[in-house]
Amino acid sequence: MRKSSLPSGFIGCQTPYEEAEIVIFGAPFDSTASFRPGARFGPAAIRNESFGIETYSPYQDADLLDGRICDIGDLDLPIGDIAQTLQMIEDETALILQDDKIPCLLGGEHLVTLGALRAVAKKYPDVCVIHLDAHADLRQDYLGLKLSHACVMRRVWEILGDHRIYQFGIRSGDKEEFDFAKSGHVDMVKFNLEGLATTLQRLGNTPIYFTLDLDVLCPGLFSGTGTPEAGGICFDALHGALLLLKNCNVVGMDVNELAPQLDMSGVSTAVACKVLRELLLSVVG
Amino acid sequence: MRKSSLPSGFIGCQTPYEEAEIVIFGAPFDSTASFRPGARFGPAAIRNESFGIETYSPYQDADLLDGRICDIGDLDLPIGDIAQTLQMIEDETALILQDDKIPCLLGGEHLVTLGALRAVAKKYPDVCVIHLDAHADLRQDYLGLKLSHACVMRRVWEILGDHRIYQFGIRSGDKEEFDFAKSGHVDMVKFNLEGLATTLQRLGNTPIYFTLDLDVLCPGLFSGTGTPEAGGICFDALHGALLLLKNCNVVGMDVNELAPQLDMSGVSTAVACKVLRELLLSVVG
Amino acid sequence: MRKSSLPSGFIGCQTPYEEAEIVIFGAPFDSTASFRPGARFGPAAIRNESFGIETYSPYQDADLLDGRICDIGDLDLPIGDIAQTLQMIEDETALILQDDKIPCLLGGEHLVTLGALRAVAKKYPDVCVIHLDAHADLRQDYLGLKLSHACVMRRVWEILGDHRIYQFGIRSGDKEEFDFAKSGHVDMVKFNLEGLATTLQRLGNTPIYFTLDLDVLCPGLFSGTGTPEAGGICFDALHGALLLLKNCNVVGMDVNELAPQLDMSGVSTAVACKVLRELLLSVVG
Amino acid sequence: MRKSSLPSGFIGCQTPYEEAEIVIFGAPFDSTASFRPGARFGPAAIRNESFGIETYSPYQDADLLDGRICDIGDLDLPIGDIAQTLQMIEDETALILQDDKIPCLLGGEHLVTLGALRAVAKKYPDVCVIHLDAHADLRQDYLGLKLSHACVMRRVWEILGDHRIYQFGIRSGDKEEFDFAKSGHVDMVKFNLEGLATTLQRLGNTPIYFTLDLDVLCPGLFSGTGTPEAGGICFDALHGALLLLKNCNVVGMDVNELAPQLDMSGVSTAVACKVLRELLLSVVG
Amino acid sequence: MRKSSLPSGFIGCQTPYEEAEIVIFGAPFDSTASFRPGARFGPAAIRNESFGIETYSPYQDADLLDGRICDIGDLDLPIGDIAQTLQMIEDETALILQDDKIPCLLGGEHLVTLGALRAVAKKYPDVCVIHLDAHADLRQDYLGLKLSHACVMRRVWEILGDHRIYQFGIRSGDKEEFDFAKSGHVDMVKFNLEGLATTLQRLGNTPIYFTLDLDVLCPGLFSGTGTPEAGGICFDALHGALLLLKNCNVVGMDVNELAPQLDMSGVSTAVACKVLRELLLSVVG
Amino acid sequence: MRKSSLPSGFIGCQTPYEEAEIVIFGAPFDSTASFRPGARFGPAAIRNESFGIETYSPYQDADLLDGRICDIGDLDLPIGDIAQTLQMIEDETALILQDDKIPCLLGGEHLVTLGALRAVAKKYPDVCVIHLDAHADLRQDYLGLKLSHACVMRRVWEILGDHRIYQFGIRSGDKEEFDFAKSGHVDMVKFNLEGLATTLQRLGNTPIYFTLDLDVLCPGLFSGTGTPEAGGICFDALHGALLLLKNCNVVGMDVNELAPQLDMSGVSTAVACKVLRELLLSVVG
Repeated sequence: MRKSSLPSGFIGCQTPYEEAEIVIFGAPFDSTASFRPGARFGPAAIRNESFGIETYSPYQDADLLDGRICDIGDLDLPIGDIAQTLQMIEDETALILQDDKIPCLLGGEHLVTLGALRAVAKKYPDVCVIHLDAHADLRQDYLGLKLSHACVMRRVWEILGDHRIYQFGIRSGDKEEFDFAKSGHVDMVKFNLEGLATTLQRLGNTPIYFTLDLDVLCPGLFSGTGTPEAGGICFDALHGALLLLKNCNVVGMDVNELAPQLDMSGVSTAVACKVLRELLLSVVG
Repeated sequence: MRKSSLPSGFIGCQTPYEEAEIVIFGAPFDSTASFRPGARFGPAAIRNESFGIETYSPYQDADLLDGRICDIGDLDLPIGDIAQTLQMIEDETALILQDDKIPCLLGGEHLVTLGALRAVAKKYPDVCVIHLDAHADLRQDYLGLKLSHACVMRRVWEILGDHRIYQFGIRSGDKEEFDFAKSGHVDMVKFNLEGLATTLQRLGNTPIYFTLDLDVLCPGLFSGTGTPEAGGICFDALHGALLLLKNCNVVGMDVNELAPQLDMSGVSTAVACKVLRELLLSVVG
Repeated sequence: MRKSSLPSGFIGCQTPYEEAEIVIFGAPFDSTASFRPGARFGPAAIRNESFGIETYSPYQDADLLDGRICDIGDLDLPIGDIAQTLQMIEDETALILQDDKIPCLLGGEHLVTLGALRAVAKKYPDVCVIHLDAHADLRQDYLGLKLSHACVMRRVWEILGDHRIYQFGIRSGDKEEFDFAKSGHVDMVKFNLEGLATTLQRLGNTPIYFTLDLDVLCPGLFSGTGTPEAGGICFDALHGALLLLKNCNVVGMDVNELAPQLDMSGVSTAVACKVLRELLLSVVG
Repeated sequence: MRKSSLPSGFIGCQTPYEEAEIVIFGAPFDSTASFRPGARFGPAAIRNESFGIETYSPYQDADLLDGRICDIGDLDLPIGDIAQTLQMIEDETALILQDDKIPCLLGGEHLVTLGALRAVAKKYPDVCVIHLDAHADLRQDYLGLKLSHACVMRRVWEILGDHRIYQFGIRSGDKEEFDFAKSGHVDMVKFNLEGLATTLQRLGNTPIYFTLDLDVLCPGLFSGTGTPEAGGICFDALHGALLLLKNCNVVGMDVNELAPQLDMSGVSTAVACKVLRELLLSVVG
Repeated sequence: MRKSSLPSGFIGCQTPYEEAEIVIFGAPFDSTASFRPGARFGPAAIRNESFGIETYSPYQDADLLDGRICDIGDLDLPIGDIAQTLQMIEDETALILQDDKIPCLLGGEHLVTLGALRAVAKKYPDVCVIHLDAHADLRQDYLGLKLSHACVMRRVWEILGDHRIYQFGIRSGDKEEFDFAKSGHVDMVKFNLEGLATTLQRLGNTPIYFTLDLDVLCPGLFSGTGTPEAGGICFDALHGALLLLKNCNVVGMDVNELAPQLDMSGVSTAVACKVLRELLLSVVG
Repeated sequence: MRKSSLPSGFIGCQTPYEEAEIVIFGAPFDSTASFRPGARFGPAAIRNESFGIETYSPYQDADLLDGRICDIGDLDLPIGDIAQTLQMIEDETALILQDDKIPCLLGGEHLVTLGALRAVAKKYPDVCVIHLDAHADLRQDYLGLKLSHACVMRRVWEILGDHRIYQFGIRSGDKEEFDFAKSGHVDMVKFNLEGLATTLQRLGNTPIYFTLDLDVLCPGLFSGTGTPEAGGICFDALHGALLLLKNCNVVGMDVNELAPQLDMSGVSTAVACKVLRELLLSVVG
């Protein structure tokens, strides 16, 4: 019997694919990062450093080892080919959905959400998006590019239409983005998470896609991200939001924008690991 | 003849000098830094990284592009020659004031304030100083040196006299400094910004020089500074203070003590950029 | 008369040993660190960087120079020999206690507490432990090792028995540790410091050993530690706790788990220095 | 109408465009970086840190201030759009060539060479390429992408044909790339610069495009690059190569693959600055 | 067919165990590191970053994909328990030897060699050790500890006896260690690798255990190690030594003392990866 | 008997002052650093990290413990006051010389040499200076400042006159500096140490002041310095130079320009420690 072994995904998520309820996969992609790249290293860092946290959550009195969660690793993406990257994310998401499992995508930059959402919207045409972020990501284009992290929610809106996207914590964008929100296309709560509980309650059993740009957090806590933005919510506020998902019909989710090497203390990665654990435990059946 | 010259400067501040209401200039100086130098790199970092934030503020619904702000770049200072450095800062400030514009000085270490204040006090003899800082900076001398960052407000007091300096957020100094404040020479609020609104209201139309040592912030958020001091205020508190300046008669201001290379995550620089944007938008007409 | 000098311990703590009330010593040990080592460099960093803070506390209006505190430096520990290390810590603590002084141990990883506590419990059999930490440290063993930082409070419990350990701020551990606490062996307050004041009041004149794992702090502020854990208390909360010790019968104390090189901004070390100053000023007579 | 604009540029290169013999411009692009991105920050770092070196070369007894060199700044590239990026580089290069000046392109990743070379090959159909690099960059495609840094010399070969590319210092690639070279399509010298002098002599007055991937250097000296490769040449060897260009007909050149934030000591950037100075002084009339 | 996957060991070493000629395993151990720990992170870094190099060696015109090499991952070691750690390494090595395969151990600190050597010496009683290192590692004990990295070759000598250990590149140690070598117990070549070829030739078919402490390299190239020592050999010299092993009877080997986080540029890890590739290709049949 | 102790200067240099032959003292000063400050932290880093090297030199078969060397620590300098700083260095040097000991000054930036040299030239009017450096340091003034690190050898020349300064390794400066050398005021060897042996031989018993700017080394090895300059000598070359001092009449020496925090790997500090050890062992009787 060998005592040695290679790493095997996020801590406590070693359920075989067939039995899994939630399936984690990574998209190490950051080609459209406009300020500082590095989110491509997010999924690997989250897995490597996950052994620094416990599988047990004293907040939820629950353990990842008791959930049926599988981590199938990273997509092998063609760096620099944006369209193909999004297609591969969509395909993988579709396969997971087809098996009646919940995809949990690890970015990568926020544009990866578009690939996953395309697949989710096909299976759940009435899906609503809960979007936590520092940035509105609602531009029509960015430096001429339409498939950019700065435009991802605009692209999602083109698929879903008005009143299907609920943004929280937004504290940066250009005037056009905030005007776009004000004119009613998306529901935006600026600066914090006020009203999230009410929104989730109102959505009832509507299918929800939860997309978390970790830069919604205060950059004092989460400095390892491409575009840190002063202000932002504290860990407890984010954690409270995750717990609210417990009674929702979450059909897909993603966690994005950890650029681990920008925070050499490792705190940002440790935060991302704990956020992912709490999110998984909140959503898992 | 200008001694400073500049590239493109802080984001959104490309109004020609003649038309500008506020004029930004930098003093890359840190020769008296007693603990860790590096504030000399502050102005360049703020300019270089400013393209990572937006020109639009969702807090104030205002855009730097709509303000008349000019960034004339850095003074070319003789490193190590303190007296000459202060003279050059005073001269530049005087030129800007003479043109009826508002100088906005980027440090460098906090001693640079003395140069600017000398010019301001000549034009506005009744000027009051609003001083946000972790440190009292009220020493008579520091290791025998009177022109030291640790003495800057004492030197300012020698110019302005009693009850003209309002300090907020102070949480470090020696006993003599706190006694100096207690005996009524300056008005000091310890640890936080309590009473700032009242003070500003009471000052009414009095000319105000606003000097911000960024280490007033919690070092968890703002680690890139020479002398980090535990405690301190959060970004929202500082931001609130900046908004209070909107209806005041600000005749000069400075932002100091970013030592960018001490925070390799870049968060401190991003914070400084956003603070500067919000300060400019609050003060600009 | 020479003007040059070698460093001489924590700032303001140069009282001769014989006259000292509190005696600081360091245990640069981290051999059982399971995630990221480096706490061995904690004591040296705290001393080296202590000249970056003041000896005077504006919070307590007190000065280290007025307290009778001695810093005798670091133990010369046999790296890798855990049992011998603990024995040396116990011996040093016993010597200090024998001289009717209060030992203040600087770790190092948290396991060092066990050495000190053994000596303290011999002199004060009714001692109670106030334990601030992110981690419960209550495991029976860790990867087969019983003398591990992850087990230190379990080992302490084996010495003291039930209801003698009061834990605060705990937010990580495995299920068994939380169950161990729930079954009444130790008193555990999760996530924050609620009830600390009441506990200390109730303990009255009971001898108290105060052990502080600095990772109880929010890792946004204190990133320089081996196992950062999202959540945690802010500096003001910790500072409030330290002030509560003023009227208690503290017979020993330790401050642990600064791994300075993990936070290259130096903020964590600055925080540790200030925490130590405030702790010393609160406890000193 | 120029698309690039600039501050003060590389030290000593402030000749007006019209009078310049050599024109520097930057392409801050790294979208196809397969391992570690960051070369996009190269041009800005080289300019910002160039004030740390002298304009005078004691090697060549020559001064940048005496050369007619202009730095027009960086192209404003659409991040993530590879084809458009290459087009913009080609256009800028063509404009400079049209004005009978020598373009000196600062990358960015090595793919930028393709844009410049396209323009150069149109004006000088018989141009030969001198290529110093650790990597062969001769792949047919990389993860399906043909416009990748790993394929750039293959794309160049498609334009120029056999026996027009001279590679030196190559020490990494897959078997196919080395076989491609062996079959005579390109002339490759492995591991060092042997034969460079002879080659240049033989080329006589043939137009030469000089492309320098700085990772040809030993990574002990030049660690700030995306794909460091053990082995490599020392500074003196590279410097000797630059001096050999003195009597050649260099019609274009580029310096690539500095990723400054990967080497926090700043040495890599300082090396790049000095290499650029020596290259400019060697080529300038 | 899934397109996503978890990492699977050192690049190009995915031969099934049963068919493998060489078996890689890691011992992430650094408990006796006296200066700076971190070698425990070596094996993971080597695996994670190995995708940054090629499987093909242009030096040897050989490819890892053509060798029969298996990477079985890391031992799950009880941190802090030295004796047990060495036992586990010995057991694993013995299992691999028993299957007539060549063990290739990745440290970790250099003490891990003792575990492997114990097993090797049992199967090959006449084994000789080729030891490349900056440090003699010949102490009788270190701070009282006999199982220390600083004593590992002394412990090996106790097993093998005189004239069985050949040390090269040694440039640090105390006088006793150099005297121990001079008195003939081990063959030591100071500062460089002179005579290695002759030694290997003379050893002919004798079983050889090759142990490589990477700090034998110049710390300018290999800075990511616990105890950097000025002087040292360059990459080409080390590479030449590896090629000499081609015709030797290597029955076991190890590569030690990469502490990846000490070299944030990643160069040290890249060097270690390439050294391992070249070593494997040289030894594999 | 206490087992704990505070650090006590450079390793192996604990001879009481009275009995010492060589006296080490530090000047933590960098106020005129024009590019990147931080040399002020050099002396402390050299002492703190000296325990990472051995006291024994296998090169010289000699041990610091056998030399009579005393480390009296750092001067307590008035930061920002250049003239007073130089005076204090001169005074301390004079005291040591008066006691017939050899001063060994640890900088700090290179300007500190001026203070020491003033005292040395008073006692030894015929002293010659051996100066190893990347930079000529021969400017008349720097940005108007005459007491600048960039002018230090010019100031020394003003004291000593022509043909008393021997410079080696110089590879940077402006044209005026190289012309100043060419016109015969100082003897300058560019780029390397050629002729050093001959020079020292010719000087015979002339009193020699040896000043070493560590940036003479290749920045690949020694990156932790304010103004890294590509090119430079390797460790072995520098080491050879140090050994040449063995038979010279060295009456004073200094080692300068380590800025430890610029090289986070710690290699630069380790190099400085070893250089200092070898220098001390070469000069000590």
